[in-house]
Amino acid sequence: MQNISYYHTAFVAYLDDKIQVKEPASLYDPIHYILELGGKRLRPLLTLMTADAFNGDYKHALNAALSIEIFHNFSLIHDDIMDDAPLRRGQPTVHEKWDINTGILSGDAMLIMAYQLFEYYDPNTFQELAKLFSKTALEVCEGQQYDMDFETRDDVSVDEYLRMIEFKTAVLVGAAMKMGAIVAGASKEDQDHVYEFGRLLGVAFQLQDDYLDAFGDPETFGKQVGGDIIENKKTYLFLKALEFSNEDDQLQLQHLFGINPSDATDKIETAKHIFQTSGSADATRQEIENYTKMAFAVLDELSISEDKKDMLKHFGHDLMNRRV
Amino acid sequence: MQNISYYHTAFVAYLDDKIQVKEPASLYDPIHYILELGGKRLRPLLTLMTADAFNGDYKHALNAALSIEIFHNFSLIHDDIMDDAPLRRGQPTVHEKWDINTGILSGDAMLIMAYQLFEYYDPNTFQELAKLFSKTALEVCEGQQYDMDFETRDDVSVDEYLRMIEFKTAVLVGAAMKMGAIVAGASKEDQDHVYEFGRLLGVAFQLQDDYLDAFGDPETFGKQVGGDIIENKKTYLFLKALEFSNEDDQLQLQHLFGINPSDATDKIETAKHIFQTSGSADATRQEIENYTKMAFAVLDELSISEDKKDMLKHFGHDLMNRRV
Repeated sequence: MQNISYYHTAFVAYLDDKIQVKEPASLYDPIHYILELGGKRLRPLLTLMTADAFNGDYKHALNAALSIEIFHNFSLIHDDIMDDAPLRRGQPTVHEKWDINTGILSGDAMLIMAYQLFEYYDPNTFQELAKLFSKTALEVCEGQQYDMDFETRDDVSVDEYLRMIEFKTAVLVGAAMKMGAIVAGASKEDQDHVYEFGRLLGVAFQLQDDYLDAFGDPETFGKQVGGDIIENKKTYLFLKALEFSNEDDQLQLQHLFGINPSDATDKIETAKHIFQTSGSADATRQEIENYTKMAFAVLDELSISEDKKDMLKHFGHDLMNRRV
Repeated sequence: MQNISYYHTAFVAYLDDKIQVKEPASLYDPIHYILELGGKRLRPLLTLMTADAFNGDYKHALNAALSIEIFHNFSLIHDDIMDDAPLRRGQPTVHEKWDINTGILSGDAMLIMAYQLFEYYDPNTFQELAKLFSKTALEVCEGQQYDMDFETRDDVSVDEYLRMIEFKTAVLVGAAMKMGAIVAGASKEDQDHVYEFGRLLGVAFQLQDDYLDAFGDPETFGKQVGGDIIENKKTYLFLKALEFSNEDDQLQLQHLFGINPSDATDKIETAKHIFQTSGSADATRQEIENYTKMAFAVLDELSISEDKKDMLKHFGHDLMNRRV
């Protein structure tokens, strides 16, 4: 078993080696660009680490890991077009640096390339990986669609929100880990458990992202604090605040999340104040803890040694403490 | 062996049965819409017919055929966004009827759904189909990229143009037929030959499309005659005319293909006149015949009965005479 930075180095070296620029450059340059923008490479690391945890050679999981990373970056390119986002990891998004057509077509090519990486495996493994991948990828599309639908709806329930973040974010974390288990030849039971661990941790991670967006330390969060409030995003914090508030605060929240002031300082402060006084901030922290605990409880079901469980748990803790 | 309309009816019934609207409707409604717009269903018919020609049960090829049709329609949705096209088969394009974001995301989902249809086959067949599909789909993306690149280049060669239409159009025809052969358990040699037949016929078909765009009968062509000239498309007709013309005609052609008059009648007439006097129209007809003959020559290599070869040949003739 290796430490995180070992897998990170190995993965990035593999990515650099595999992702070469070819013709037509106008199609493949943007793919090279987004994949070389960096990022934490969390999902592919989880694939490698899980393969290792099930006594597989992590090197054998590199193609599956790269597939997951290419898919993730495909979804970033297309989502950035849909969200009209100018920046990604501090650099211009693909459709800003090139144009929307380039973003669409390069993204399409990446989705296909993600499938091609499974061709390195034998037919049975290929089919298992591709089936899991297709199911997951379609759920990610559905999650993105729900997220867009929710923008124009004012009756989104907490359950609907949780399902949206499960599809948009969490299932890919589960799939990344399950792919590592598949490649390592783990039993179906272990595959399902490790998927569940990743899925629950993925929900916890996204809820924490929502929480930190309002209450994170601007020094370390890496994104603009209050961004979701500025964009009127109906996150868990907002939905729980609506649920818990008295009528006055409900009306004020609904008003705040319908306006776009040029200076959002007051809006952010008022929203955060209601999030706290209503008990929504506490409830969100509690829900993050619930999902994290549920995730760790699933680890006990795995038929791997205690030190490997500890390793996955350690990574989970790192993730939830945002040290990775 | 059945006639074309038999396969057509069977395919459309299967499509109607498989493509049900589900949640989120905003993602799946557009998919249902584009697939139900109709069209000739040429590619899936070729898959079914080829399976039959190799003594396979055409029903066993329905999922592969549907995959090809869904992929083709995915590419139409994304290409229509890139080309800013308002109409498809006389109806509003997906991004016109909904919006660009819907077109992007519904298209993405269709690309994934196309892969899912291979899950009905055993692991070996699955891998063969998915590998061929990925290779082909990536070539189609590259073809679309070359097509867009050519719009801003004035040094496109005839060879580059032929490669572009090969990638953008012809390889999918080849792949559609090869999938039928794979599902029917044809030998690798037969698979390769039938792919080659489809690829060559696909090039002939696209060259004929270019030709008919200028010289087709407005009553039967189905599209606006002169459309490529209006859009300054550097088709085979244009490139050959440049090659064959004297300097005066070259300059006039280059001028014509750089302007966008509100009334294009004169532009179309002048371009068509140069296409004819330069010998380009003849050369194009000749090239269509060359590719068609090359395609039919490959049929002789197939290890199937003469009446099955005749059937494929008959379909090829129908296609080139646009009776299908």
